[in-house]
Amino acid sequence: MDNLKIILKSRPKGWVTVDNFAIIEEKIELKDKSKILVENIWLSLDPYMRGRMNDAKSYAKPVEINEVMTGATVGRIIESANNNYPVGKYVLGNLGWQKYCVTSTSEIEIIEDDIPLQYYLGICGMPGATAWIGLNEYLKPIAGETLVINAATGAVASVVSQLAKASGCNIVGIAGGQKKCDYALESLGYNACINYQSEDFFKNLKSACSAGIDCLFENVGGKIFDNSLRLLNPFSRIALCGLIADYNLTEPYGIKNYRSLLVNRVSLRGFIVFDNQSLYKKALSEIKKLILDNKLTYKETITDNLENAPKAFIGLLQGENFGKQLIKL
Amino acid sequence: MDNLKIILKSRPKGWVTVDNFAIIEEKIELKDKSKILVENIWLSLDPYMRGRMNDAKSYAKPVEINEVMTGATVGRIIESANNNYPVGKYVLGNLGWQKYCVTSTSEIEIIEDDIPLQYYLGICGMPGATAWIGLNEYLKPIAGETLVINAATGAVASVVSQLAKASGCNIVGIAGGQKKCDYALESLGYNACINYQSEDFFKNLKSACSAGIDCLFENVGGKIFDNSLRLLNPFSRIALCGLIADYNLTEPYGIKNYRSLLVNRVSLRGFIVFDNQSLYKKALSEIKKLILDNKLTYKETITDNLENAPKAFIGLLQGENFGKQLIKL
Repeated sequence: MDNLKIILKSRPKGWVTVDNFAIIEEKIELKDKSKILVENIWLSLDPYMRGRMNDAKSYAKPVEINEVMTGATVGRIIESANNNYPVGKYVLGNLGWQKYCVTSTSEIEIIEDDIPLQYYLGICGMPGATAWIGLNEYLKPIAGETLVINAATGAVASVVSQLAKASGCNIVGIAGGQKKCDYALESLGYNACINYQSEDFFKNLKSACSAGIDCLFENVGGKIFDNSLRLLNPFSRIALCGLIADYNLTEPYGIKNYRSLLVNRVSLRGFIVFDNQSLYKKALSEIKKLILDNKLTYKETITDNLENAPKAFIGLLQGENFGKQLIKL
Repeated sequence: MDNLKIILKSRPKGWVTVDNFAIIEEKIELKDKSKILVENIWLSLDPYMRGRMNDAKSYAKPVEINEVMTGATVGRIIESANNNYPVGKYVLGNLGWQKYCVTSTSEIEIIEDDIPLQYYLGICGMPGATAWIGLNEYLKPIAGETLVINAATGAVASVVSQLAKASGCNIVGIAGGQKKCDYALESLGYNACINYQSEDFFKNLKSACSAGIDCLFENVGGKIFDNSLRLLNPFSRIALCGLIADYNLTEPYGIKNYRSLLVNRVSLRGFIVFDNQSLYKKALSEIKKLILDNKLTYKETITDNLENAPKAFIGLLQGENFGKQLIKL
């Protein structure tokens, strides 16, 4: 069988380019009968992948040069001698940027098709759990408080805002472009959404947060984060979830308003969704219930064909996607 | 009676100068017999006072122009009609940069002279409580961990290191100059103390923290803080207590290594010692016990005469003091 896979050809210096990747065709077959052959159907593209392209100390090891790019996948078992993992079953795994994969049962998890399969890569997967944990474990907003969420229509933030709605707080989004802001207001439960590309960004943010910021779900970093720090209230909380603005800079932006963390006695917590497995499972079981009850809206940008993954990934880093970015293989 | 007081004449732009202060002589007498006349003996100088000189939103209101500079004091009651506050008793208060003060009983607290009186302004006062709370409430170091404390010989840090000693952690100080580093090692319980004025500062810090930093008691900010962030371990904690490096800059230093807060899932907490009164009392009662048992070392820089307070304060902001800075009136 012919497999198609995308490997890391070189490490980016600053912005990722398509030349950092190479597409490879090679034969694949299931020789070791204790293993399983999976055909990937969906590949998730996520900002964290940028970090894996660097040869730097982080919470996960980097992708090696010539190694297949890492990535969460949903696929179908097409060859298996294991009765617990029969042909035809759908599986969630981290099988990478490739069409087929020989893998072990320990690397995959069988999923039900009671929700669209690709949801396991987004709203009912890592990004959804990230939203739930950041909100319920670290921010815990209460009625009357102001919650700011940036990358407002992204895979994580769009779930945060909808989950937060029930708390009765003032939910302010930050997004790139009026189209995303309009969608955030209409569909995602935001009370306001500020376009960071506008010249009046800080003025508009301040006016939407007229009582200051009590909770900040931070996905972006850089200048946007720095501006938000200026509006923090005493005893406010920050869930530091992502810093996409910095991932492609050779020299990161210098945060100037960090004194606000002191004078406002802020609690800031960096977090990675996989640190607490029982919380992860709890988050996804609650989210799945909400999905089955039609209580969550969800937007996807679907790009066809594995070959287009590098370009789609670069677009994601530049904020060109609208909602969860997926590759349909 | 002739009072001498130092008022804020103008707000500093950047570094404080002696011209920002004025010294005033004026008559003082106790007309309202429900009040109390106190002669101040000791005035505490502390970095937070720099913040009060700005007309900026903070956790406490700024000193107004022509108002007496704020400051904690120890004094003696010299006129009083209140039997509970008799003449001769020593009192702790926030009576400011002046020799005498007419005040109310609600503004002062009678203190015992079982320890040197000026200790109530330092090791057994606000700085000591700050050390105790930051360490025991927010950092909680455990045996084998590495704790970094900067401004290592200062009024707060010198108590942190001695209190932390019992935990069995590796205690690394950062100080300005070899003399302070030597003292930190010899007397304050540090396992290492790094001179930030050295060219090899980061290299030396890294080598003293060969297993990374688990707890950071941050008093300085700026470049020193930024360098420490590079060495943080997963799940490390930061008690953000002071940012003296930035207090005199018109444009604060930009922190570049804040991504470390995310990838290492750091808990950072800005705190002000007065936020929790019961904790404050608990801290001081434990510290007083240690002082009476001769278990704490303490160093002071004592400057005579109120007139020298502005110069001594500027020296404090530049790190010229060695241990707790006091004015003997």
